[in-house]
Amino acid sequence: MARENEQGEFALIQKMASFFPKAAPGLITGIGDDSAVFRDPEGKDLLATCDVLVEGVHFLPEARKDPAALGARLVSVAFSDLAAMGGLPWLVFISLGAPADLSASFYDGLAEGIGRKCVRYRAAVAGGNMSRSPGALFIDLFVLGKVEKGRAMLRSGARPGDVVAVTGTLGASAAGLYLLQHPEAAGQVPEPLRREAISAHTNPEAQLCVGRTLSAMGFATSALDVSDGLCQDLGHICVASRTGAAVSVEKIPVSEAARAVAEAAGRRPEDFALSGGEDYQVLFTMAEKDASQVAWRVREDCGVAVSVIGRITEPGLGRVLEYPGGITRPFPEIGGHDHFRGN
Amino acid sequence: MARENEQGEFALIQKMASFFPKAAPGLITGIGDDSAVFRDPEGKDLLATCDVLVEGVHFLPEARKDPAALGARLVSVAFSDLAAMGGLPWLVFISLGAPADLSASFYDGLAEGIGRKCVRYRAAVAGGNMSRSPGALFIDLFVLGKVEKGRAMLRSGARPGDVVAVTGTLGASAAGLYLLQHPEAAGQVPEPLRREAISAHTNPEAQLCVGRTLSAMGFATSALDVSDGLCQDLGHICVASRTGAAVSVEKIPVSEAARAVAEAAGRRPEDFALSGGEDYQVLFTMAEKDASQVAWRVREDCGVAVSVIGRITEPGLGRVLEYPGGITRPFPEIGGHDHFRGN
Repeated sequence: MARENEQGEFALIQKMASFFPKAAPGLITGIGDDSAVFRDPEGKDLLATCDVLVEGVHFLPEARKDPAALGARLVSVAFSDLAAMGGLPWLVFISLGAPADLSASFYDGLAEGIGRKCVRYRAAVAGGNMSRSPGALFIDLFVLGKVEKGRAMLRSGARPGDVVAVTGTLGASAAGLYLLQHPEAAGQVPEPLRREAISAHTNPEAQLCVGRTLSAMGFATSALDVSDGLCQDLGHICVASRTGAAVSVEKIPVSEAARAVAEAAGRRPEDFALSGGEDYQVLFTMAEKDASQVAWRVREDCGVAVSVIGRITEPGLGRVLEYPGGITRPFPEIGGHDHFRGN
Repeated sequence: MARENEQGEFALIQKMASFFPKAAPGLITGIGDDSAVFRDPEGKDLLATCDVLVEGVHFLPEARKDPAALGARLVSVAFSDLAAMGGLPWLVFISLGAPADLSASFYDGLAEGIGRKCVRYRAAVAGGNMSRSPGALFIDLFVLGKVEKGRAMLRSGARPGDVVAVTGTLGASAAGLYLLQHPEAAGQVPEPLRREAISAHTNPEAQLCVGRTLSAMGFATSALDVSDGLCQDLGHICVASRTGAAVSVEKIPVSEAARAVAEAAGRRPEDFALSGGEDYQVLFTMAEKDASQVAWRVREDCGVAVSVIGRITEPGLGRVLEYPGGITRPFPEIGGHDHFRGN
């Protein structure tokens, strides 16, 4: 069903896009990537992206109790789209749809959480819109960023023979979500790992340093952030680049927290990493010869590990997971995520 | 109560803004005006604004039957914010929160309506985001525009002694809304005027030509679009410019359609014009000596009338309506609108 949805949504977006004028002076990349790319004042390219949190879809009503966390999380999620393209955040716009029963402290907390993250990443809140919402609360963020001219890392440049790499570790966010949904399992997970998993889910960070470093080096042939899950996101690169991909499951840097939660849940360690999503690491491709230099630099500059987990293949070879012993399986069809993207 | 809300909302926005970093290189005007102003590629200033339509707040569930009209209306509303600052639309981003029961034809129609307006005004759809919504449908538009460097017309430049002017006629949109809500009154209104009123409400146009002309002439000391209602919007100018204002009620260009509907509704002709909102005309101020030249040029270039309806006064004089016979009243406290703005 998730597969069907993904297809349906893709077709829907394609269909909608067919009605739109999509070219404008200065617009370099519009619909179809993490951010739109266009030209900025000082000769930089501008990036634009939007992300929304809808109550009951992206967060539970209980999360209203900690609006600062909601706000901070949304900013990280939006900035992660900029990070994956090599950009830095610049201006933030907030569109809020608010049910009548929201308390004043909710607004304060939300603004505080958003403001804090913006200060940290040197972005400014430059405007927005507020509306009542008769149903669910929604918080819609629109973010503009900048990147050096022509340096934005798109999804579309991967070539057969490139290696597939990912930063940091994967799976902790999905493991954290699992713990929130299955409190009974939490007792079986050591305290620090439990906290790590939940924090990965509720308080993710955008990999801005990594994105800047990759963009400056200029070796990444494609990049995006791991928001929907490794398989789905690598699938986006394959579609945009018209390639296949093969991922070696044993090379995936599954987080220790995800391993512990998987054990408690009776699941395979890689499950949370493959389709969990919301890790907000950078997934990218590059020529094999550049891999060690890139990994060294990202570790030096950002303190983040880079793991080579597979390779880009000819499109006819599809997208496969390779298990030890020569077993291969197609990417799983179950996506990890209940929202879908327009760009 | 509307007054109380307006105050509460203003305070709320102020409060939220206190948590935000609000300065960034290149950002000229952030929170507090129709659009944020910042610098663009070719040395132009960029404008950014967002507007949302929420089901049950800005449109009735029946309006789902004509999604193209919804989409087109939203684009006009957002572009109107650019128009009032003297800008031209450039890029549009759409964030959609969609209930599960939306039909495919809804998406098509919506995209068509948005696309059509964008083609007409030479803007491109450059990205967006789609999400499920468990409650009401919402359509959030983020728009970037351009204006010549330093030429954006803000709310804050009105000076005592300036005249207050408005383009076109007022009241038709509110009259159209009244007819939609009171079908029993429609029979008493002549057919062409009935249609004019309803069309003003459901299919407004942004005054882009007027905005461009005013901005090019450089005589407007402040400007905004009439979205909340004449009194409330002029109030925004007074607050931003720290002035008072006096409006001569008999000089207000009440639309013929609004007069006809007011008669059928047993209301005063000016009622719809004073607090109705959503006329999307440009309300602006200028030195008295410039008024006739500006009116002539706007009529020549755009075929739109400019009416001088009052003057900007010292702040201590408050905001008053002047009626024939020397009677004055403070601006009415009932706003015409159920949404509130963050910028």
